[in-house]
Amino acid sequence: MSLKGKKILIVGLGLIGGSYAEALKREGFEVGAVTRSRESIDYALQKGLIDCGTISPDADFVGRYDILVFALYPHVFLKWIADNQHLIKPGALLTDVTGVKGSVVGKVQEMLRPDLEFVGAHPMAGREVYGVRNADCRIFKGANFIVTPTPSNSEAAILEIEELGRTLGFERISRLSPEKHDEMIGFLSQLTHCIAVGLMTCKDVRHMSAYTGDSFRDLTRIARINDEMWSELFLLNKDELLSQLDLFIGQMADIREAVAVGDSQRLRELMRLSTERRALFDK
Amino acid sequence: MSLKGKKILIVGLGLIGGSYAEALKREGFEVGAVTRSRESIDYALQKGLIDCGTISPDADFVGRYDILVFALYPHVFLKWIADNQHLIKPGALLTDVTGVKGSVVGKVQEMLRPDLEFVGAHPMAGREVYGVRNADCRIFKGANFIVTPTPSNSEAAILEIEELGRTLGFERISRLSPEKHDEMIGFLSQLTHCIAVGLMTCKDVRHMSAYTGDSFRDLTRIARINDEMWSELFLLNKDELLSQLDLFIGQMADIREAVAVGDSQRLRELMRLSTERRALFDK
Repeated sequence: MSLKGKKILIVGLGLIGGSYAEALKREGFEVGAVTRSRESIDYALQKGLIDCGTISPDADFVGRYDILVFALYPHVFLKWIADNQHLIKPGALLTDVTGVKGSVVGKVQEMLRPDLEFVGAHPMAGREVYGVRNADCRIFKGANFIVTPTPSNSEAAILEIEELGRTLGFERISRLSPEKHDEMIGFLSQLTHCIAVGLMTCKDVRHMSAYTGDSFRDLTRIARINDEMWSELFLLNKDELLSQLDLFIGQMADIREAVAVGDSQRLRELMRLSTERRALFDK
Repeated sequence: MSLKGKKILIVGLGLIGGSYAEALKREGFEVGAVTRSRESIDYALQKGLIDCGTISPDADFVGRYDILVFALYPHVFLKWIADNQHLIKPGALLTDVTGVKGSVVGKVQEMLRPDLEFVGAHPMAGREVYGVRNADCRIFKGANFIVTPTPSNSEAAILEIEELGRTLGFERISRLSPEKHDEMIGFLSQLTHCIAVGLMTCKDVRHMSAYTGDSFRDLTRIARINDEMWSELFLLNKDELLSQLDLFIGQMADIREAVAVGDSQRLRELMRLSTERRALFDK
């Protein structure tokens, strides 16, 4: 299998769905969209992000597409599959952009028609703004694209979704099991968002904006957060997120103790470890 | 008083001292340096950052300067004043770049000769690299310069140090008492460095570097940290830092609880507050 010549349907035309559409149109694909708002369709048509779109999916429309990309909130994605999978073309390949996998991929695969295949993926890119009007496929450049196959997936389908990631412009394409993905994302993404929210809300800092340097600004950039989406993602990955929160809160308590007793050696040891590890993350 | 025509001595030629020297030379000032390493002097002379320098300060050398800027570790600064203030020109104006004020400004003012005046200042700029070889006065552009006067300072001297901040290229010049400064810095800078170190050391994340997005990278940029300097600054501001750590750790425990019991409303409330507040910090 190969992507070449395939027709691609984006379900959910927000920031990520719109950016997928833009990237795929630029690469010459025929791109359709299903979304809730007529205005989003009109905007995307006018900007040339899609070839056609609808807010009322039917078999005529949905049945034309070989690949379907779901860029929806997790519960909306699951409901869409339950309600509309009978519209999908036989043999089509499905993928998604959902930020948690353990509680999504298995459920979709279980309820899916046997002639369809779903390979989960997580494009690790985003911005602190929302909606198709902010779509910008440059956010994928240099970013990570993680494919989360299960034993029920075929190698051919996995390869095709990896090709999709490369076509979108992602730099690093990798595979993780849904469980490993969720542990990783619980730490690297969900915990960091919790920290940014915690830092921003633990004290009334409004009067401090005149004094802040880059460090506070960097740590709280992601404190601007879509509360509906992230609260859902947090609770869908509850056990992993709690483990990561416990690790972090425990470490902060250790640092507090070292400050309280004036243990300069312990502080310096942690700072040296931190400095050494951080060097691995430089771009 | 005005800076015009004054001779300026930098004591301590590291990243910040070297960047001060570069900025002041560009503005046409005569700039001297005292530091521990001959190599730093040679480098600064060769690059035109200073007019002259010495590693053995004497009255002939030090006594020529009208303004002295101390860019030293806090304990080294206090010792330098105790050992060498007899070398300073009568009527000279002293300032510093130290990151904590409550435990430094008062001590210096108490021990200082009555004909000298010290006005504390904190240039809120820096990089994750060290030494005069990394000096770069562009780091001051757009940054905050905080002057921390006490009742013992004259308005004329405070104005002169504020003029120094503007001359260096800082955008916002403000005044805070040493105590208000330390509360603010305990939160905006020291707590954020603790968080970055805590996040980087709470889990062995080396295998995760392939998957990380920008959020983890942003939160840990300052996890590369000069352990000698920061451990000293933390412990010199111990009470404030502990208060700020307690606020933050308490808030993280609240977030953990909301995740544990699945309290989506509480999570969303915190996220909306965080989003609203963060908007004030956009540049």
